[in-house]
Amino acid sequence: MKYHAKVYVSLKKGYSDPEGEATASALQGLGYSVLEVRSSKAYEVSFEAETREEAEAALDEMCRRLLTNPTKDDYSFELSETR
Amino acid sequence: MKYHAKVYVSLKKGYSDPEGEATASALQGLGYSVLEVRSSKAYEVSFEAETREEAEAALDEMCRRLLTNPTKDDYSFELSETR
Repeated sequence: MKYHAKVYVSLKKGYSDPEGEATASALQGLGYSVLEVRSSKAYEVSFEAETREEAEAALDEMCRRLLTNPTKDDYSFELSETR
Repeated sequence: MKYHAKVYVSLKKGYSDPEGEATASALQGLGYSVLEVRSSKAYEVSFEAETREEAEAALDEMCRRLLTNPTKDDYSFELSETR
């Protein structure tokens, strides 16, 4: 079975996010009423697995082993089956 | 009214994505049955607007003016009202 996942990786609360802060300032400078911007990273991963449980477990492992830094990042994902 | 938006910025189809390709190779090297990885960028934006229509229009403008490069990027967003 083929699966498609969207993985979102963002900095944990408390970590400063200079890119987000600079983006917020730039948007405020353009006249928008922006309060805060947090920048993050996303991956779309297409992969194969036997069952949905196996797919979730594999994806979670991929996040912890390679896609994120568990010390400083939070992550979440949306998983869907494809043909 | 306060609004919170998640904005996803990804490369248009046809643009090569070396980061995604390298990530896919690395995951395959770790033994996962990965077919493809596309890397993208996400922003969480908190801002103020009078109405939902105004919020959507402002956010779309922010995306086109600052958050994305319309020549090479596709974008989408999810908008929600907050207190």
